[in-house]
Amino acid sequence: MDYRIIKSPSPGTLALLLRRKGSAPSIPIENYDAVGLVQGRLIDMVFAADIAEKAAGVVVEDIKGHCPQNLIMIAIFGDTAAVEAALQEIRAKLKAGDNF
Amino acid sequence: MDYRIIKSPSPGTLALLLRRKGSAPSIPIENYDAVGLVQGRLIDMVFAADIAEKAAGVVVEDIKGHCPQNLIMIAIFGDTAAVEAALQEIRAKLKAGDNF
Amino acid sequence: MDYRIIKSPSPGTLALLLRRKGSAPSIPIENYDAVGLVQGRLIDMVFAADIAEKAAGVVVEDIKGHCPQNLIMIAIFGDTAAVEAALQEIRAKLKAGDNF
Amino acid sequence: MDYRIIKSPSPGTLALLLRRKGSAPSIPIENYDAVGLVQGRLIDMVFAADIAEKAAGVVVEDIKGHCPQNLIMIAIFGDTAAVEAALQEIRAKLKAGDNF
Amino acid sequence: MDYRIIKSPSPGTLALLLRRKGSAPSIPIENYDAVGLVQGRLIDMVFAADIAEKAAGVVVEDIKGHCPQNLIMIAIFGDTAAVEAALQEIRAKLKAGDNF
Amino acid sequence: MDYRIIKSPSPGTLALLLRRKGSAPSIPIENYDAVGLVQGRLIDMVFAADIAEKAAGVVVEDIKGHCPQNLIMIAIFGDTAAVEAALQEIRAKLKAGDNF
Repeated sequence: MDYRIIKSPSPGTLALLLRRKGSAPSIPIENYDAVGLVQGRLIDMVFAADIAEKAAGVVVEDIKGHCPQNLIMIAIFGDTAAVEAALQEIRAKLKAGDNF
Repeated sequence: MDYRIIKSPSPGTLALLLRRKGSAPSIPIENYDAVGLVQGRLIDMVFAADIAEKAAGVVVEDIKGHCPQNLIMIAIFGDTAAVEAALQEIRAKLKAGDNF
Repeated sequence: MDYRIIKSPSPGTLALLLRRKGSAPSIPIENYDAVGLVQGRLIDMVFAADIAEKAAGVVVEDIKGHCPQNLIMIAIFGDTAAVEAALQEIRAKLKAGDNF
Repeated sequence: MDYRIIKSPSPGTLALLLRRKGSAPSIPIENYDAVGLVQGRLIDMVFAADIAEKAAGVVVEDIKGHCPQNLIMIAIFGDTAAVEAALQEIRAKLKAGDNF
Repeated sequence: MDYRIIKSPSPGTLALLLRRKGSAPSIPIENYDAVGLVQGRLIDMVFAADIAEKAAGVVVEDIKGHCPQNLIMIAIFGDTAAVEAALQEIRAKLKAGDNF
Repeated sequence: MDYRIIKSPSPGTLALLLRRKGSAPSIPIENYDAVGLVQGRLIDMVFAADIAEKAAGVVVEDIKGHCPQNLIMIAIFGDTAAVEAALQEIRAKLKAGDNF
């Protein structure tokens, strides 16, 4: 599992993420303070997306790689503190390993 | 073989799974109590889907999103107890190894 | 090379295979007693499909993974005895290794 | 590099190859006595296709079906002796290694 | 992470990159003095694109062409000094490792 | 990095390359004396394409594998001496390793 946080993402970076997000293009990605990126296996990313979505003050998108059928990264948008909190929660819950 | 269970999946998580399920988009994924995820090789996932489908009270979908081509994921929707029972049955039968 | 046999496949399992078979969707997969699955390298799967097709009483389909250009699994439909016989023949002939 | 030869290929096997060949679908694959299969890296398969095409009495097709992207397969159609001769020539010339 | 710099890229090289860039084809790639290439994992490339975009005097594009799905490439266009500065900044910041 | 050279490529080999080249299908591949093939990582192939394009008397094409987003091979068309010279220059410059 890999984690990165980008503070004050540049317009081109947001455009790159916008072109690759899984939800409809008509749903905009606004200019957020920060974007957190989490990359890993499909099963873990669905799990992480659920954790992030239940955290406060962030928006979660799944980001495609180049093969259209590919999901390996999620992006978490919000203010810096909220994104950091969401990433910390994902990291803690995924570290705990298989939950079944 | 990897297993995860998500209790009270968030709307965004269900939407993510909905966009990637193999059956027709017109067949809705309802709001279920829980979703179980199983990830593994294509041949094992077809086998696991059959086990889950024969279990009581769950709906099974195959989820797209992997290119390492013999790896896919299935999602099992239902109430928490039913999903857990289905996952346990899959785990037991797949542990038993090659059935031919 | 991996082998599995599913007896009395569930309707959802047959639907999953139907959505992924290589031949035209208009050719139906009927309700067969059993389905045998063989997963392996492309070159071996073409070879195995030929062995199975020459066996009695089975129908052979190639099953796609998620990348549309991907063939790594074949499904062999028929009554249980015929499917088992076809799988046994594939296993015997593929074990014999490179035939050239 | 993997080699296989299928003698008297079944109609289903020919149909499977027909659905996956690289040239226009309007160019038919006739009922040949034998089909030779060679699987390997893209660069070697272009080289092998050229060797086979220059051999007598065979038709060469590239067959889709692998995503590990530098791996493809070619099929060589003809009577058994011609296919075997083409496979032998490919094997000999590819064994000789890098020609540059 | 791999880095390369091409000085005075040839028209064919620019055309190759143009055909594979992620942004709309209508946005032209002009004739720049140099193009820097960085190849790595998806999560790192988004991060690197943001670093490059915040650098002065360069234009950043993501370039398609890999299926190993967490691997992508970005191209950084500009005059030689600006491209080198952007590559140096990416290398320094990525060396620092996980920023979360 | 893999290199091969095909002298007097057969029409089928040229057709195979034609179907897979990255530039518009309307741009023909003529009958050249020789074709050089270079296979490697995306970043190196862009670099190699630039080296070849700047060499005299050759035409360079990027050749797709089966995944449409895939670039791993370039083909260099020209008379035998020019193709050999271009391959030698690529090999020398790529051996020199990372140029940044």
